[in-house]
Amino acid sequence: MVVKQLNQVKTGTVTLPVFTLESGIQLKDVTLAYEWAGPEVGDPILVCHALTGNQHTVGTEEEPGWWRGLINYSGYVDLYEQPVITFNVLGGCNGSTGPLSINPASDQPYRTELPFISVRDMVKAQKEALNILGIQKLKGVIGGSLGGMQALEWAVTFPEMVEKLIVMAATSSLSDYGMSYNAIARKAIMDDPNWNEGNYTDHSFPTSGLSLARMIGMITYRSDQLFNQRFHREKKDEWGTKHKEVAYQVESYLLYQGDKFTKRFDPNSYLYLLKAMDNHDIEAGRNTLEKTLSSFQKEVYLISYKGDLLYPPADMERLAEAWEIAGAQVNYKEVDTIFGHDGFLTEFDKWGAFVHEALKEKRPVN
Amino acid sequence: MVVKQLNQVKTGTVTLPVFTLESGIQLKDVTLAYEWAGPEVGDPILVCHALTGNQHTVGTEEEPGWWRGLINYSGYVDLYEQPVITFNVLGGCNGSTGPLSINPASDQPYRTELPFISVRDMVKAQKEALNILGIQKLKGVIGGSLGGMQALEWAVTFPEMVEKLIVMAATSSLSDYGMSYNAIARKAIMDDPNWNEGNYTDHSFPTSGLSLARMIGMITYRSDQLFNQRFHREKKDEWGTKHKEVAYQVESYLLYQGDKFTKRFDPNSYLYLLKAMDNHDIEAGRNTLEKTLSSFQKEVYLISYKGDLLYPPADMERLAEAWEIAGAQVNYKEVDTIFGHDGFLTEFDKWGAFVHEALKEKRPVN
Repeated sequence: MVVKQLNQVKTGTVTLPVFTLESGIQLKDVTLAYEWAGPEVGDPILVCHALTGNQHTVGTEEEPGWWRGLINYSGYVDLYEQPVITFNVLGGCNGSTGPLSINPASDQPYRTELPFISVRDMVKAQKEALNILGIQKLKGVIGGSLGGMQALEWAVTFPEMVEKLIVMAATSSLSDYGMSYNAIARKAIMDDPNWNEGNYTDHSFPTSGLSLARMIGMITYRSDQLFNQRFHREKKDEWGTKHKEVAYQVESYLLYQGDKFTKRFDPNSYLYLLKAMDNHDIEAGRNTLEKTLSSFQKEVYLISYKGDLLYPPADMERLAEAWEIAGAQVNYKEVDTIFGHDGFLTEFDKWGAFVHEALKEKRPVN
Repeated sequence: MVVKQLNQVKTGTVTLPVFTLESGIQLKDVTLAYEWAGPEVGDPILVCHALTGNQHTVGTEEEPGWWRGLINYSGYVDLYEQPVITFNVLGGCNGSTGPLSINPASDQPYRTELPFISVRDMVKAQKEALNILGIQKLKGVIGGSLGGMQALEWAVTFPEMVEKLIVMAATSSLSDYGMSYNAIARKAIMDDPNWNEGNYTDHSFPTSGLSLARMIGMITYRSDQLFNQRFHREKKDEWGTKHKEVAYQVESYLLYQGDKFTKRFDPNSYLYLLKAMDNHDIEAGRNTLEKTLSSFQKEVYLISYKGDLLYPPADMERLAEAWEIAGAQVNYKEVDTIFGHDGFLTEFDKWGAFVHEALKEKRPVN
């Protein structure tokens, strides 16, 4: 055990000189920002992050990453033994090419001139970046929500490269109900006059629209039970009956979360990622679900979270059944939680062991 | 059977010269608009309408009311025998005093100068209006959602006047989760620059904000199953990948519903009614739930709808149990539906007979 290696993560960027999108459009000088944690060599696990996540999965002691409860030294994914890599998604706003990046063609930020980015584009960009980094094999691909969508695309697009697949809180396509929330969130951003067709500035920023969009997201991330248990109609203000007065703690909480989000996320990037989610459908342009799934017949681990409004356990169970029929070795777990969708970001003790088991070598090594 | 009476409904208004709100504030010349259907005499059933409903419960053949599937000549509630009255709620925008009404103190519309209106205020105003109309007894009080909240308040505030209580899709208080949707809807309206602190005009109207608010409501009214079955990711536009392009039918549907709503509802009124819902809690300022419920010990009929996100069947079942302990004759029904909350506005054949039975005379007459 080399103590000085603890908490050392490497961050960097990879540049793809030319990248061809699913639409056929070519982008030049595409950057992908990444974090590498754990041993410097070995087949890594690729983590795919969710909508508002980023590449800082492990982070540092001072600034722990969003999945440090799962992936850590001696964690469920053990960084003493297992390297882990995460890319910020294409279209994101944490260092990878996205609406904030300079368009080489105009020397101006892309803003809304960036072409549509699909989940498949995110995955293909990661694949090309891994090639440049000299990585041919992934010990596993793991992700939840938008990260789960990417993981699914990874398995069916590059099955030869992926040893094990772990998908949480994601389904084979986004449901119409899920799209509904996204449509409302986009309208909230675009109807903010400060959005200005994407040409906002720091001084004239669509704070209201992005904040609303975040609040709309928040209510789908956690269950009604959790909201009710946490706030039980606690008042913030004794009367609070004027429209602008915040009467209840739950309102105050949501407004705070909405506002906080505007300090860390780019509104245009949010629009791109929502559109990518809407478009997510692993069958599209391929074949039936089962035939599509049959291209990956190795170990598949699916985890759903009780009360997940957007990716209900019943839907994930159907995916598990279909994949089993399609020839994979499927393990499915439904986590009993009041967190709902956000289950994959919390209560690691409930499902971390399942992930740990998933990553164990099943065959004798020799 | 007098055929010419068919489809005749009487509409009118009642004016309360002075009305004292729960807050102690007095309003002058309060108007309540109403619809009376069925026989001209007899103890009526009082219908309480939901958030975006109105007094036109039965309506006419040309313009059928919102509950004509339940209440009609030879309907589950039979207008040949049973008179039915509905008031537009205080704070509403269909003829009763609300933000659009002229404030006698200023000769200008109240707009946001109208004091806070609670569900209890709505109920007390109805009671005083019924007094003026010479009605001492109600054969029943019936309502769903915000209408159910009013019905609950009716039973515990004026138990002597109510013979039977029928509540659908409503609970003893609004949950924090329910408030969350309301908070977001209010922010959407108030953040629309055209809202202008409530001083909008026809030419500068918060269409975007009210439309968003309606869309936020829509996704709570119907279940994910219904959305998915109805739209199954059907595309509206083959590509539709630019932010402003509407790619899927479900988006198109929601945008259409949002826009349509802005042509029939007053944004300020919507804000008042949402605040009233947030505030709804039959225990508040009274006693424990059971002691509060014990003031009404007659027949109680509760109907919940599977998949109701805001008023889950489990919560209504708890209310039924508490009321039984509190001494009422409680009948509880959970309707199996994919409509969710909107179940009380549709599929009348699934629960109309339950209402019909509820209204039957149980004791031998004479």
